[in-house]
Amino acid sequence: MSRLRDIGIAIGTLPTGTHNAITDVPGVLVGYDTVVSDSPHVARTGVTIIMPRGHQSWHAPVFAGSHSFNGCGEVTGLAWLKESGLLYNPIAITGTPWVGAVWDAMSWFAVSQGFNDSFLLPVVAETYDGWLSDRVGELVGRQQVINALNHAHSGPIAEGNVGGGTGMICHEFKGGTGTSSRIVTAAGQSYTVGVLVQANYGARADLRIDGVPVGRAIPTSEIPSGWSEPNHTPGDGSIIVIIATDAPLTSSGCDRLAQRATVGLARTGGYGHNGSGDLFVAFSTGNELADNRHQLEQIRVLPPSAMDQLFHGVADAVEEAIANALCAAQTTVGFNGRTAYALPKERMQAIVRAAGFSQSPQATQPLPDTRQP
Amino acid sequence: MSRLRDIGIAIGTLPTGTHNAITDVPGVLVGYDTVVSDSPHVARTGVTIIMPRGHQSWHAPVFAGSHSFNGCGEVTGLAWLKESGLLYNPIAITGTPWVGAVWDAMSWFAVSQGFNDSFLLPVVAETYDGWLSDRVGELVGRQQVINALNHAHSGPIAEGNVGGGTGMICHEFKGGTGTSSRIVTAAGQSYTVGVLVQANYGARADLRIDGVPVGRAIPTSEIPSGWSEPNHTPGDGSIIVIIATDAPLTSSGCDRLAQRATVGLARTGGYGHNGSGDLFVAFSTGNELADNRHQLEQIRVLPPSAMDQLFHGVADAVEEAIANALCAAQTTVGFNGRTAYALPKERMQAIVRAAGFSQSPQATQPLPDTRQP
Amino acid sequence: MSRLRDIGIAIGTLPTGTHNAITDVPGVLVGYDTVVSDSPHVARTGVTIIMPRGHQSWHAPVFAGSHSFNGCGEVTGLAWLKESGLLYNPIAITGTPWVGAVWDAMSWFAVSQGFNDSFLLPVVAETYDGWLSDRVGELVGRQQVINALNHAHSGPIAEGNVGGGTGMICHEFKGGTGTSSRIVTAAGQSYTVGVLVQANYGARADLRIDGVPVGRAIPTSEIPSGWSEPNHTPGDGSIIVIIATDAPLTSSGCDRLAQRATVGLARTGGYGHNGSGDLFVAFSTGNELADNRHQLEQIRVLPPSAMDQLFHGVADAVEEAIANALCAAQTTVGFNGRTAYALPKERMQAIVRAAGFSQSPQATQPLPDTRQP
Amino acid sequence: MSRLRDIGIAIGTLPTGTHNAITDVPGVLVGYDTVVSDSPHVARTGVTIIMPRGHQSWHAPVFAGSHSFNGCGEVTGLAWLKESGLLYNPIAITGTPWVGAVWDAMSWFAVSQGFNDSFLLPVVAETYDGWLSDRVGELVGRQQVINALNHAHSGPIAEGNVGGGTGMICHEFKGGTGTSSRIVTAAGQSYTVGVLVQANYGARADLRIDGVPVGRAIPTSEIPSGWSEPNHTPGDGSIIVIIATDAPLTSSGCDRLAQRATVGLARTGGYGHNGSGDLFVAFSTGNELADNRHQLEQIRVLPPSAMDQLFHGVADAVEEAIANALCAAQTTVGFNGRTAYALPKERMQAIVRAAGFSQSPQATQPLPDTRQP
Repeated sequence: MSRLRDIGIAIGTLPTGTHNAITDVPGVLVGYDTVVSDSPHVARTGVTIIMPRGHQSWHAPVFAGSHSFNGCGEVTGLAWLKESGLLYNPIAITGTPWVGAVWDAMSWFAVSQGFNDSFLLPVVAETYDGWLSDRVGELVGRQQVINALNHAHSGPIAEGNVGGGTGMICHEFKGGTGTSSRIVTAAGQSYTVGVLVQANYGARADLRIDGVPVGRAIPTSEIPSGWSEPNHTPGDGSIIVIIATDAPLTSSGCDRLAQRATVGLARTGGYGHNGSGDLFVAFSTGNELADNRHQLEQIRVLPPSAMDQLFHGVADAVEEAIANALCAAQTTVGFNGRTAYALPKERMQAIVRAAGFSQSPQATQPLPDTRQP
Repeated sequence: MSRLRDIGIAIGTLPTGTHNAITDVPGVLVGYDTVVSDSPHVARTGVTIIMPRGHQSWHAPVFAGSHSFNGCGEVTGLAWLKESGLLYNPIAITGTPWVGAVWDAMSWFAVSQGFNDSFLLPVVAETYDGWLSDRVGELVGRQQVINALNHAHSGPIAEGNVGGGTGMICHEFKGGTGTSSRIVTAAGQSYTVGVLVQANYGARADLRIDGVPVGRAIPTSEIPSGWSEPNHTPGDGSIIVIIATDAPLTSSGCDRLAQRATVGLARTGGYGHNGSGDLFVAFSTGNELADNRHQLEQIRVLPPSAMDQLFHGVADAVEEAIANALCAAQTTVGFNGRTAYALPKERMQAIVRAAGFSQSPQATQPLPDTRQP
Repeated sequence: MSRLRDIGIAIGTLPTGTHNAITDVPGVLVGYDTVVSDSPHVARTGVTIIMPRGHQSWHAPVFAGSHSFNGCGEVTGLAWLKESGLLYNPIAITGTPWVGAVWDAMSWFAVSQGFNDSFLLPVVAETYDGWLSDRVGELVGRQQVINALNHAHSGPIAEGNVGGGTGMICHEFKGGTGTSSRIVTAAGQSYTVGVLVQANYGARADLRIDGVPVGRAIPTSEIPSGWSEPNHTPGDGSIIVIIATDAPLTSSGCDRLAQRATVGLARTGGYGHNGSGDLFVAFSTGNELADNRHQLEQIRVLPPSAMDQLFHGVADAVEEAIANALCAAQTTVGFNGRTAYALPKERMQAIVRAAGFSQSPQATQPLPDTRQP
Repeated sequence: MSRLRDIGIAIGTLPTGTHNAITDVPGVLVGYDTVVSDSPHVARTGVTIIMPRGHQSWHAPVFAGSHSFNGCGEVTGLAWLKESGLLYNPIAITGTPWVGAVWDAMSWFAVSQGFNDSFLLPVVAETYDGWLSDRVGELVGRQQVINALNHAHSGPIAEGNVGGGTGMICHEFKGGTGTSSRIVTAAGQSYTVGVLVQANYGARADLRIDGVPVGRAIPTSEIPSGWSEPNHTPGDGSIIVIIATDAPLTSSGCDRLAQRATVGLARTGGYGHNGSGDLFVAFSTGNELADNRHQLEQIRVLPPSAMDQLFHGVADAVEEAIANALCAAQTTVGFNGRTAYALPKERMQAIVRAAGFSQSPQATQPLPDTRQP
């Protein structure tokens, strides 16, 4: 009983993919390495890998876009992604202190495997886990990246305290990794939209689940706040959102999908606080492109007017993926004995049900494709 | 009983300004010219003027920024606003067919008044009212712009079927003009954030008021949809948001405020549909600058770390301004006999109250300034 | 003898198209209406129309992009162009005072012709001709736009004091409209890049032709400066650049082409002065798309790695198009008896030849396609 | 005789600062660590540090902006720089393989020194030196970063094969680090603009010095090309430009300065090739801001209309800094025995003089401040 739908709550009316996960997009693999230890350093950290096109992701670029809702964070490689409209590498997400080490590991791995025929500009994203995890030591590096790459798989994937999300805090509860997906119809065909979030943002008072203000119903006087250091504002922290789809889009369509992550985040209680790195990357696997390619490509692309259900899919899946991260995350004692408490799911369930309007997953039906002629 | 707070519903916990209007920001004036006639053309249209610094707005630029959530619309003048970081003119908002005529009128007025010492690049925004109002004829032009300029005033301002908002439709109910404001604390001082929306977007099924899914509780089988033409998707249309504050910001801070309009829009049910021009402009009156100025300026500016309450203020005020537009708008019969029905406020009130969590305006208290040290 | 190549000077080594004009890109039409009169108003103005896909341009969008080198100017319609990655309309370029009237005319024409099945967001660009042409009166409006639309044609096109360029000033000489084209090779195939400029920017001292500092060799003590009003800095003014290609690009590639206009402008002496609206629009006719389309499109697209010759083509053609505008423009007496003098071409020719390195057009050979494997 | 002015050639007419270096901007320090060895790895690499406000650069942010002319490269930290409009850290520039290691070193150094009171998002830029330097090994890391930080100084700074520029190639000659500065007048006061480039881009045939096509006069049949690998196009590679000024600007003004680096680059022969990371960062030291600051700031800012001489200063200094990098760089034999030859300065001098128009440094006079009233 660790996901939002397991407690009878669905976000929106679009159906989910088979596993309600980013891996429902064919070819997308996710791998984690979770680093938890108490000595020599208190580690509650790790790394997450998303491979857009399976193990071909080092050779076969995908169309991609990005959006910054608030830029107090890092996703390396965005200059080239924006210029080319393509993503040439797997994506890595980790804790802030390890961005350099993971960048080095991704570059080194590519060179060591001979994947050096295209530009090596690794895409490494982060959110800050320094409240629960020591930021000194060399807790994530080449071995952890290799582990995550080797672990990458399709099908169901873990959520909560895993991979890069291990030490994260969200709306002052224990946060972490979450995922969700939607099946949408565009131009008469069915496509999948999948998202993965590393959720580490938000104030307790702002948390809503499907519109219901759950956070203010569970005050910090009852369940203490994660992230209560003197110099940190509740609500600092960040969220990375990765969006995958098999709908055939170019970079322009991917940029638009990326910005729609804001919708799901806003409905959950995100305001894009000053100290938050709310950075979103979207890619489309809907066309197969050759690596380092110099030949004219024949591709398919959805017209702008066919995008609306994709926008709904992204927004709804992001909202549900954040909720899934909160549902799956477990109470964690970390650095300096600090404790981040899990969201009490039964309380949350009761609060949402009391509002009387949340739609249960069973009621879910696909929207008619009225948005297309 | 025409505003959201009049029926006992408040968005967020920040206090409003005196009039809960954009005009709570000192110096900001709003003027309307409302054009309603049945011959020779069916007119349900008009023009709205926002003057950032009273009648000095032709001489005294203000720091300004903008954001496009979805760009299927027009706000002229944004290239210069982005380049200079300044807004040099009043803002006009009208129906789509009249953008050219209003641009011409604003330029002509400035030249005729001798306000030609700085670059004349009018800022004219639009949303499309062609479902209720004939788009031929010359329904808005120089006289209507002069009327709106002459009508511009501070204090309480009208909402709903007024000015540029006269013929608009929002979430398939009658839409139009709405406004709201918040008092926020930043770096130990109190400031006002005010917004004005021209709301003409959204699908019925997506409408939420304070998180409660009001739209799907009032189906179009019960109250017919506005905007039900064969070639238009429910949810097409646009929203223009103008954000004013007396907090001293430069263009960078204004850009950030502008993007936060997305939060209030998303919580109300906006997805940034393909056919929607969701364009936001923010300005700060917190520094007095000279026109066409060539001298070093001494200004004050809030640091990035003091922005969080401003972000909350924008998001909450946008959400309430859209609700205010819906509350104030009146059922309208227009072009070709089409009818756009007003949101039934008592129904809406009952639906929101049934959820049991909405906070009444009386309970409103300012947030403690915990976000600053 | 009115073009740069006519006096023996060629920019770069890429070959030109048949007419060395934007109309060398198949389907591109250019039409002018030139408005010159001395009463009731002194008019030295006009309007230029560029139709990307002939008279189908109202029905058939093209992929498009844009860039702002300095944004003190106006190109309407860019929000939707950026969002959709498409250009849905012909482009109009005029003098600043007539932007509103031309916007109105383009919208009215489309509605009156029944071209209203897609979003009507006209693309109207401007540079300021108020030194030579009175800015009151209604000198450009519906009739002038119809004239220019009706006049649109392929093949050789006029330069200098024509259309929107009639009253322009460039590097303190008489400026105006100019055009040029290049044949490039990308991914093993041959394509055309064509540009049209409306050149109204720059200080005399900064003008270079093919790298030779022609401007400082012809001081204003010898040939007086155009644009010598007290309140205007030499070098104020603007340049609009329209770039067309039949190379199959999406919006991402078009954005990149648009930015390369900066290269040709910089080499000629443009710095992007504060008062200059240096705005560039690029489009690709390399794919045929349906209007208001809702179906999946099959398109071709060049990969990023095949773009280098296109970048050279744009840069070189922009440099030559500005020179062509200067060569073709004729000394003009206008508003208030002001005179803008033409660039003395023989002087210019002699100065360039004295440097000894300029390549004559006859020597022009295509670059080998070494940039592709 | 290692700089452009030493051989009698000056770019533009603005005077230089005392040292014609970025360090002419008060407070700016530059430090290098140059890594040259033949075993165990062939190293021709290093790291360059720019400290905007001396050793206070870890505590005292400066207003900053950026521009991407072509994004095939990396500058980390730009999301936060864009969001906040501020630069919070020193800038590091290195070879591509070491971005991760230098990011890690900058973060580690700040934490180890207790400089952790603000967000730690290091700014690390790169250009690719893998033709002359082995990209395996751990050639640049914490020790090299400490060395460069310790070495940082004001006054004259080295150019050519130093720091991050050690292994670079420019227009197929040996490239590297270059610097230049200009004294400009804005709003009646005198300011300094300084630039530092790490130049690693460009094709031989496109190189111009002060407009004279030097590159095509020295063909690769005479002096072989650097960067002649089968899979690399001449002209691939990148240029990083760092711009400093003591003129008081906010982020908006810094963004504008950053884009003007394109002008100097274009005049020298840069086209922004697809494989080039042409990324520019500008900062202003003209206001003193407190670190991690939450208080209202009193600042000074130049109005947009006072920017023109700053634009000239940036463009001219970038052009001269690239030339200085070429003049100072020395022929280098590196990885796999490859040789990159230095630009033959006497040849270059003779070619430029033959054109007959280059202005000698002695003739340099400041422009009159005609651009301000």
